Amino acid sequence: MMKFYILTLFPEIFDYMTKQSIIGRAQTGGYISVEALNIRDYTKDKHRHVDDYPYGGGAGMVMQAEPICEAYDALCERVGKRLRLIYMSPQGKVFNQKTAKELALSEEIVLLCGHYEGIDERAIEITQAESISVGDYVLTGGELPALTVIDCVSRMVPGVLSSSSTDFETFEKDLLEYPQYTRPEVYRGLHVPEVLLSGHHKNISEWRTRESIKRTLKYRPDLLK
Amino acid sequence: MMKFYILTLFPEIFDYMTKQSIIGRAQTGGYISVEALNIRDYTKDKHRHVDDYPYGGGAGMVMQAEPICEAYDALCERVGKRLRLIYMSPQGKVFNQKTAKELALSEEIVLLCGHYEGIDERAIEITQAESISVGDYVLTGGELPALTVIDCVSRMVPGVLSSSSTDFETFEKDLLEYPQYTRPEVYRGLHVPEVLLSGHHKNISEWRTRESIKRTLKYRPDLLK
Repeated sequence: MMKFYILTLFPEIFDYMTKQSIIGRAQTGGYISVEALNIRDYTKDKHRHVDDYPYGGGAGMVMQAEPICEAYDALCERVGKRLRLIYMSPQGKVFNQKTAKELALSEEIVLLCGHYEGIDERAIEITQAESISVGDYVLTGGELPALTVIDCVSRMVPGVLSSSSTDFETFEKDLLEYPQYTRPEVYRGLHVPEVLLSGHHKNISEWRTRESIKRTLKYRPDLLK
Repeated sequence: MMKFYILTLFPEIFDYMTKQSIIGRAQTGGYISVEALNIRDYTKDKHRHVDDYPYGGGAGMVMQAEPICEAYDALCERVGKRLRLIYMSPQGKVFNQKTAKELALSEEIVLLCGHYEGIDERAIEITQAESISVGDYVLTGGELPALTVIDCVSRMVPGVLSSSSTDFETFEKDLLEYPQYTRPEVYRGLHVPEVLLSGHHKNISEWRTRESIKRTLKYRPDLLK
């Protein structure tokens, strides 16, 4: 079983989202577990504040190092080891299918979600967090990126999907996936490509590979170095 | 007000997630609206199925064209125009901060979420959907990508954030953001960089630009063409 721990100001989002659909079933099936810890529970501030103005000025608030470091330490102490910590940040290494495969080999990981204008840099230094980015865009917090990592990595944990589902898919072999068709044979005048109805496995497989290459050349030539 | 419509098999996820935090406030403040439509309500199948086996064989199920096209048509008819439709797909054009800015100029957009092994290609052809990918990884469905687009685009809708918050941030000017620090001045022996305490605006600004460039060179040299 792979364990995901999340350090966040919005633990209820994880409680809700990881009960849905395939990830929900992966959790009830015992293939993964997801536990969200509220960073706010680790502040020593009497008003339970976890953020303050940035030194040097600028807009917005910055999350303080202390509650983050304290939450991480408390978790590591409970589990009995230093856990691998990943900070969800647009400044991080870009997450992709290969990163997901590598993470899926871990027994457990901790995902740290920032909010506001980010977190105090010393929290990253002290916890020795790696930074990972799900894409070149800025979001209101690290929660959606953490859910994205959980979803993508969980699919690769043995037992979560039927094994054949991940055999050929986008980014395996650096190709986009071929087009899919299902019933009916004709819809609004559009026909399913004939080869797919032929039952001729070799031709179908060749057609799919060709379509994958065509698509990749058209939309993502950067994938075919 | 910017309107987001979503075509999905899991509308309750959007009802829940877009009530949280900044996006929730943007919605109650009348800056954005989010409405999720259940694709399953538009199937003509008596068992309310929306998927079937792929023609040509292969693992998993494919979402049928009909309920998707019917849902989209019904929405366009209600709104009184053909709406811009975006299919969340790893096969799509890569989403980034520039795409988000461009989308934020729209009055309304429709986001289509696939599930299982994808959707019947004819649904894309008939609805003339654009495909957008939030990153080079495969997820269990289009819901998290759609939430990511809503979050990122909403931040840019005037009034949602204080204007200065988006003035300088990661990917503006193709640079990663500089490190942030907040109180206390010393935490676990680590000091805030002295320049940030100096009150000297020009020096602070130069330090931040230098740190941004250093970080970008170190972690994302690809951004500095």
